[in-house]
Amino acid sequence: MPGRTVRRRVLRVTLASGDGGPAGESAGADLLAAEEPLGIRVGGAALTMTMRTPGDDIELAAGFLVGEAIVRSAADIAGIRLCDGTACGHQDHDGLGNIADVTLADGVAVPPGARRSFMTTSACGICGKTSIADIAALPDQALAADATIVTPGVLAALPGRLRAAQRVFERTGGLHAAGLFTADGELLAVREDVGRHNAVDKVVGWALLAGRLPLAGCVLLVSGRASFELAQKAVLAGIPVLAAVSAPSSLAVGLAEAAGLTLIGFLRGPSMNVYAGARRLSGADGQLAGGR
Amino acid sequence: MPGRTVRRRVLRVTLASGDGGPAGESAGADLLAAEEPLGIRVGGAALTMTMRTPGDDIELAAGFLVGEAIVRSAADIAGIRLCDGTACGHQDHDGLGNIADVTLADGVAVPPGARRSFMTTSACGICGKTSIADIAALPDQALAADATIVTPGVLAALPGRLRAAQRVFERTGGLHAAGLFTADGELLAVREDVGRHNAVDKVVGWALLAGRLPLAGCVLLVSGRASFELAQKAVLAGIPVLAAVSAPSSLAVGLAEAAGLTLIGFLRGPSMNVYAGARRLSGADGQLAGGR
Repeated sequence: MPGRTVRRRVLRVTLASGDGGPAGESAGADLLAAEEPLGIRVGGAALTMTMRTPGDDIELAAGFLVGEAIVRSAADIAGIRLCDGTACGHQDHDGLGNIADVTLADGVAVPPGARRSFMTTSACGICGKTSIADIAALPDQALAADATIVTPGVLAALPGRLRAAQRVFERTGGLHAAGLFTADGELLAVREDVGRHNAVDKVVGWALLAGRLPLAGCVLLVSGRASFELAQKAVLAGIPVLAAVSAPSSLAVGLAEAAGLTLIGFLRGPSMNVYAGARRLSGADGQLAGGR
Repeated sequence: MPGRTVRRRVLRVTLASGDGGPAGESAGADLLAAEEPLGIRVGGAALTMTMRTPGDDIELAAGFLVGEAIVRSAADIAGIRLCDGTACGHQDHDGLGNIADVTLADGVAVPPGARRSFMTTSACGICGKTSIADIAALPDQALAADATIVTPGVLAALPGRLRAAQRVFERTGGLHAAGLFTADGELLAVREDVGRHNAVDKVVGWALLAGRLPLAGCVLLVSGRASFELAQKAVLAGIPVLAAVSAPSSLAVGLAEAAGLTLIGFLRGPSMNVYAGARRLSGADGQLAGGR
């Protein structure tokens, strides 16, 4: 089983003033929350897939079944085991234990219609993939070729512009926001939602309907954390730079590296962490990105 | 279409000191972020369902299709319309426009295996329901009969205990937490995850496997916002009190009222907002709950 945290290289950039140039850079290591897919199978068939932090996976599977009203007590479950690469008869497991195999007690069943598949690949197929590119629906367009350059000064100004543009947040405190900007910091669109993935979908949908996809040369800013799912949405929309006010997950960083996405986290005040694609930052020396 | 915010009655409780008694209560109105289901249909068949803040729904549907790699440009979509209760031939629509009906362009199709149903009911069935109880998988156990009483002083101490118990948060800044407490404030279990729903599933799964379901007399604290999904998980686990550090959504409050769940938001420092089930708060006069 993967750990709960993953140590990754990070480039820390701090502005001395608002003049747009980086005053300080330091390469170091950062601990990220680990994010890996967990497939939940019941009676040998895929029920769902969730992106989760590894750990307590048997509890996660059990609790999920409670929340779906499939089980109500421990007696409803005959057993749960983490698939170690031999149990299901498939040859392509990665041995990471990313499948929870549930056997229900006699007389307990998944109601008709409750069986779902949250990803286009089957849960067992996900389990067997070891590279992020295999589980992500990556486009064939080459995001890596996008030559957009942004300055740390422009990036540092974006959270303030996003907040100023939010129409609802100040009143409810309950909405995530996604803002699309040009590399010069001009706001193109801002959308809000209780779900951060919905806010990103709304921005991308606006761009699609306006005939602006792929969004070459653009920066997407999200108000919270950067998950795998959000990084995937940015890549599929052709957005070269994803910035988040809070932390990225390990899998978001992995996807960003694989797809050529610049990923910035903890964009707060005059400082930011660059987790992938530092070559798109003006003044950043690229020691993090290594030419990616 | 419902609005982006919903005005709800709220009971504000503020402690004067740490002695456990409420020093101040005031009933008022609070603006909540609206949360409603949106079904996305493609070619007349349900593709997915998402809980979203109403608004920009056509953009949301379009952007979702980009993120699933189903469409890549505006030309891939022949049209998107919000279902107004007459378009799909069913008689039970609520007229709220909670279905986005997508027609793809000729030659564009949903890949085999990509068609999903995220809820046990079909998207069109959701659209037609006007009460929260109809769309939620509510248990037949009567949460409303749970006579648990908690004091505001105990509640105010929980966020600090949750943070102290978190093993990873301080290092990564990237994890949500869910903590299960007794009504006296004793910590029973804490779990963390990049997804707050996973953190709750892990706590509930722990309780299930320990033979402790239903969790009568318990308080569930979540580190972020309280969505419909989290409220539903609390209800299905038999937890009578759900507290969140941040805001609840409108649908979370609606579900709490319907199911007899006590819902507390903005639990920060010495103050908290009670959105439903105030009768379980010692010292609260129940003017909000009206006997619920």
